[in-house]
Amino acid sequence: MNGKKHLKIWVLAVLFFGHAAVLKGQSPQWTEVAPGVWKTVVGNPEDYDLLKAAGCLPKKGALSQMDKTVFPLNREEINGNVADGKTSLRFPLEKEEQVYGFGLQFKTVHQRGQILRLHVDHYGGRDDGRTHAPVPFYVSSEGYGVFVNSARYIEVYAGSAARKDSKNAPVARDRNTDENWTSRPYSDAVEILVPSAGVEVYLFAGPTPLDAVRRYNLFTGGGPLPPRWGLGFTQRVHKLYTDRQVTDEANAFEKKGFPLDFIGLEPGWQSKAYPNTFEWDRERFPQPEKFVRELSDKGVKVNLWVNPYVSPESPVYKDILPYTASHTVWAGIVPDLSIPEAGKVFWGQFRKKHVDIGVSGYKIDEVDGYDRYLWPDVTRFPSGHSAEQMRQTYGLLVQKQSAALFREKNTRTYGLVRASNGGGTSFPYVIYNDYYNHEDFITALINSGFSGVLWTPEARASKTAEEWLRRIQSVVFSPMAMINAWSSGTKPWSFPEVADEVKQMALLRMRMMPYWYTEFAKYHFNGTPPFRAMDLEEGFQQQPKALTLSDSEVDLEENPYAEAVKKEVKDQYMAGEYLLVAPMFTGQTSRKIILPRGNWYDFYTGEYAGNGEVITVAPGLERIPVYVKDGGIIPMMPARLHAPATGEKTDIEIRHYGEKQGYYLLYDDDGETFDYEKGAYTFREIRTRKQTNGKWKGSISRPERGKPNTIGKVSWRFMTGETKNKN
Amino acid sequence: MNGKKHLKIWVLAVLFFGHAAVLKGQSPQWTEVAPGVWKTVVGNPEDYDLLKAAGCLPKKGALSQMDKTVFPLNREEINGNVADGKTSLRFPLEKEEQVYGFGLQFKTVHQRGQILRLHVDHYGGRDDGRTHAPVPFYVSSEGYGVFVNSARYIEVYAGSAARKDSKNAPVARDRNTDENWTSRPYSDAVEILVPSAGVEVYLFAGPTPLDAVRRYNLFTGGGPLPPRWGLGFTQRVHKLYTDRQVTDEANAFEKKGFPLDFIGLEPGWQSKAYPNTFEWDRERFPQPEKFVRELSDKGVKVNLWVNPYVSPESPVYKDILPYTASHTVWAGIVPDLSIPEAGKVFWGQFRKKHVDIGVSGYKIDEVDGYDRYLWPDVTRFPSGHSAEQMRQTYGLLVQKQSAALFREKNTRTYGLVRASNGGGTSFPYVIYNDYYNHEDFITALINSGFSGVLWTPEARASKTAEEWLRRIQSVVFSPMAMINAWSSGTKPWSFPEVADEVKQMALLRMRMMPYWYTEFAKYHFNGTPPFRAMDLEEGFQQQPKALTLSDSEVDLEENPYAEAVKKEVKDQYMAGEYLLVAPMFTGQTSRKIILPRGNWYDFYTGEYAGNGEVITVAPGLERIPVYVKDGGIIPMMPARLHAPATGEKTDIEIRHYGEKQGYYLLYDDDGETFDYEKGAYTFREIRTRKQTNGKWKGSISRPERGKPNTIGKVSWRFMTGETKNKN
Repeated sequence: MNGKKHLKIWVLAVLFFGHAAVLKGQSPQWTEVAPGVWKTVVGNPEDYDLLKAAGCLPKKGALSQMDKTVFPLNREEINGNVADGKTSLRFPLEKEEQVYGFGLQFKTVHQRGQILRLHVDHYGGRDDGRTHAPVPFYVSSEGYGVFVNSARYIEVYAGSAARKDSKNAPVARDRNTDENWTSRPYSDAVEILVPSAGVEVYLFAGPTPLDAVRRYNLFTGGGPLPPRWGLGFTQRVHKLYTDRQVTDEANAFEKKGFPLDFIGLEPGWQSKAYPNTFEWDRERFPQPEKFVRELSDKGVKVNLWVNPYVSPESPVYKDILPYTASHTVWAGIVPDLSIPEAGKVFWGQFRKKHVDIGVSGYKIDEVDGYDRYLWPDVTRFPSGHSAEQMRQTYGLLVQKQSAALFREKNTRTYGLVRASNGGGTSFPYVIYNDYYNHEDFITALINSGFSGVLWTPEARASKTAEEWLRRIQSVVFSPMAMINAWSSGTKPWSFPEVADEVKQMALLRMRMMPYWYTEFAKYHFNGTPPFRAMDLEEGFQQQPKALTLSDSEVDLEENPYAEAVKKEVKDQYMAGEYLLVAPMFTGQTSRKIILPRGNWYDFYTGEYAGNGEVITVAPGLERIPVYVKDGGIIPMMPARLHAPATGEKTDIEIRHYGEKQGYYLLYDDDGETFDYEKGAYTFREIRTRKQTNGKWKGSISRPERGKPNTIGKVSWRFMTGETKNKN
Repeated sequence: MNGKKHLKIWVLAVLFFGHAAVLKGQSPQWTEVAPGVWKTVVGNPEDYDLLKAAGCLPKKGALSQMDKTVFPLNREEINGNVADGKTSLRFPLEKEEQVYGFGLQFKTVHQRGQILRLHVDHYGGRDDGRTHAPVPFYVSSEGYGVFVNSARYIEVYAGSAARKDSKNAPVARDRNTDENWTSRPYSDAVEILVPSAGVEVYLFAGPTPLDAVRRYNLFTGGGPLPPRWGLGFTQRVHKLYTDRQVTDEANAFEKKGFPLDFIGLEPGWQSKAYPNTFEWDRERFPQPEKFVRELSDKGVKVNLWVNPYVSPESPVYKDILPYTASHTVWAGIVPDLSIPEAGKVFWGQFRKKHVDIGVSGYKIDEVDGYDRYLWPDVTRFPSGHSAEQMRQTYGLLVQKQSAALFREKNTRTYGLVRASNGGGTSFPYVIYNDYYNHEDFITALINSGFSGVLWTPEARASKTAEEWLRRIQSVVFSPMAMINAWSSGTKPWSFPEVADEVKQMALLRMRMMPYWYTEFAKYHFNGTPPFRAMDLEEGFQQQPKALTLSDSEVDLEENPYAEAVKKEVKDQYMAGEYLLVAPMFTGQTSRKIILPRGNWYDFYTGEYAGNGEVITVAPGLERIPVYVKDGGIIPMMPARLHAPATGEKTDIEIRHYGEKQGYYLLYDDDGETFDYEKGAYTFREIRTRKQTNGKWKGSISRPERGKPNTIGKVSWRFMTGETKNKN
């Protein structure tokens, strides 16, 4: 508190005297608020910020189990001050340091050098900060993270600005005659401008970049644990389907042997949409309760598309009107969801008409922007929060408040949302959008792992069977295996020439459910993102000289790996603890894959693939290249069309890859309630080891008494044959 | 003052109570500060704004000669208030109203529906407000203009935002079933968010949109009057040319018979550039004074490229250092030109090393942005002005201060600049950039006329001879007839197959100099932009029903003209009082042209072309379609390679077009000094009329005693033959 007071006095001084001279920055005071998490306050922060909007509770227990660590930066090199009603922040950068994050970028992974204005919006094809989740959190390759807790449009100069008084100031060069001239001279700092007269900032220690990400995720509540069915396959039907057409489509999945765990209804389920009544259309859905129940009985949950703008014909219109914004969206009124009374009226309709009859979740659209698809920044909200603050947090508010409807019933949800922000880590929502570039979707998936959000590279439509299959392959190795056919009406089997391959991929998704479910549990309990960049993988971060290659081999021309680790890698990623996924894109028959240090094995065959090198593969149309880390354990279950029902036991096959002994903690709980929060879960210990006779053997710890146990018969499969191994 | 005080009290109330409820707007009080110009003050405006930075003096005399008029809007429908530290403004829109302006847009002329953030920047391919001159001034088709005097990044919702309490609020529709659903419901207001707790706003009356533009231009000082040579032809040479190569190139123009009035030197003239020494490179230019003098003796002026960032090797480095920003640009220090002492040091070097030896002007680069090519928004300036304010005004400051160097010598300049803003109307600078789309360059030329700036659609390089010629044709009908070959080294004759056509176009530019010079004088004295949109032309603004066509003819399918006047027209424009220019673009062999109401005649032949209709022309490669209004007078002079020298008399040929009697005021002065400000100019009256014998006759008023007279022999040419006329 002393530090804070000191700062306030200093800030007042700046406000009074700041106009007279160029200000020297001030090094803020930091307080350790959780193990490895420090906080500072610059100026007078606002009453409303990202963490307040998200309302997230730090997982202090999990944080305290992480290694103790020291403040990761030189405090004197950090600056914060207030002038012109805005807060400037500066954090140092080292020569070889890279930074990642700042939310859901679609084209870049390496953020050093970027200039961004973090602004919740539809992604418009440029990594300029306008995106669905412009999270003001970045991670450094040096193993720390920085979070700016502001619900404002923040400007970021991520190592692009050079100061006159910097000790690392770049040297002036003549552009005409000096070939070392560059339009981007060296910058030794991340500089951030927050348009408010104060802000809270958090610093997360490593020691590794992944540790910093984990600390951020745990501090903001840990990742969501979806219900098991959320990790199955999902299809979104055409917008004007009737109840009969939806049911027919679900039946067709069953009949054709395609898995389906939840089905999404688009705007046509409502009597009016854009703006919305939130009432079932009685012509297309005369008996919604029966419709939802019958589908549910078949093992298919119902998800409803909504956007939050209220039609004059909605039953809640009159009651919510006093709590709405000055401006409308498509003539619909905009609930001020930062006011509890507004939420009570608004979500009351959802509870009564949807959740109470068994609807499993929502797809919450149009909370991101695209400017015309949202309120303008001149809008006034009755809470007094500015339009800017509301835009930056509306995605958080709808996630938090809709998720609460399900928590009331002690049942989990898993849905879709078009906007999120810092602090939204724990919400059970996956971000999607209208953009549709397959390569960029993978970059977004990679970047989601730096920012505490989830992203689906959904398949929507395709020009060719090849594209369709390639997109489905990516979708299967993502947080939500979804076909979004609201407009195209495409079905998994719409391209007959690849229908079987699509089916096999969808079934693979189901078979891997024990792995996915456990990896999400790690996201929840440990903060490790289930989908993440290669840059967070330890064997990948080696500098060229640290490779096991001899010095003479470290030649960028001869050894592309050395260069590759310095270059931005945005077409392969880690999925869970052990898998490296390298999607194929339309037109590719082969591709290069960077295997980090350590032995890697083919996911499908168990064969040795490489170690700290760049390999080229030509896997054919039916396969997406996937590799397993040495000692990797992948628990799988038999192919099935729906996630196991509550209480149902499932046999598992535990796969082991490579030469290292295997170790894995397999998560288990009831799969659908929040009882795990009260301890009703287990992490069962799996070990594999090579016996003296050269044969592999595996063991799994016993189920804990009084805890849920969904695991039936356990079988073992040692994927890597002895003769094929290589050390 | 009473109104202002009243507002301040109200604003304080808002600041204290504003958080409690959605605010009703407040109708501001307006004071008429010049004839037809009203001002209001909302909240507490900042000390530094666009008009202060530009330092422009209203031309009150010219304003008072315009028609008296009334306040053009319903005062109660205008709103202004302050909340969240920002000022919101609202101006009403009528159903059929269109708005124009908001600066140098490249793709749109109709701004209604646009969402912009006015931000000085390199144009990035989108009309989102980031441009070289994001002037916060708009003009309504209803005949008034609004100017927001703020040096901040202003957000504009130009008829895109809909209010809950609007009397014209759009009706909610169901997107699924109502084919009238639109993602852009009707909006009845321009809403503006200024990120400061107060702002000055100006309202300019019509009655016509052109009158509103004229009042804005006159209020901000009137347009610049270039020296005569500024309207000649100019070439920018390759960046590493030596003095000899430049002189050789000037000689080649002379030898080949191409006109050349000024030649531009690019970064290579300096000893170091990016950042800059502002010193001549002694190897490439050992005797700059001699070099400049010798070129000048040949009738060719020298223009120097600069950007304002100071190299440590510049002789002014040490003296200017205390007046520079916290951040650097390419390791060059950034003078705070809002501090007089900084300007004194900085421009002192320019005066001594360039202007005093005869340099005629500058091309001032890199004052716009492109983010990495400028200081970041966290930068502190010693004046205390924010980085944002400096970015919005730096273009104004460099124009104002560099122009002053020439005024000191009572000689005019005419140069190039990459950034301007509101209030910069009177500066003798033409904006250019790196973008290079011919069609969009014409749209920019059209939009320049709404915003008190000049724009050159420069020719730089071309893939084909056709493109080269088409670009040159546009350039000739623009404020600066320029080839900018700093990188390509292209010369007018670089495409031999069109070299003669290029030469004829360049010579046409010279022949039309009396017309161009007079039209610029009108810009200066009357505020009428020399290059402007069709939308400012009276016969063009007619609604379909008001056309001379019968009602049955008003069928959008049958008569595209009726539709065309409602559609955005961005490929033809008015050049001076009488000319309609319709550029041809690469690949076109024919094009459609909308002729406004009234008879129009072919510029080249005098033949009748049409009246209030859409014509299709196929002019061949050598011609750019140009039409003259009925009764149009175009004064021309013999083809020559350089503008007339001071005191030199030139014969003129006065052309008359069409059937109406002609009337024109031909401007004359010494062509290079500011003596016209002391009355040393004339507008000589030209009249043409048809005599009783059916023959045309023209007359010109006598030169005024004691005034400059550069006009020699006058000849007459009546372009429209009697037999060809049509009424």
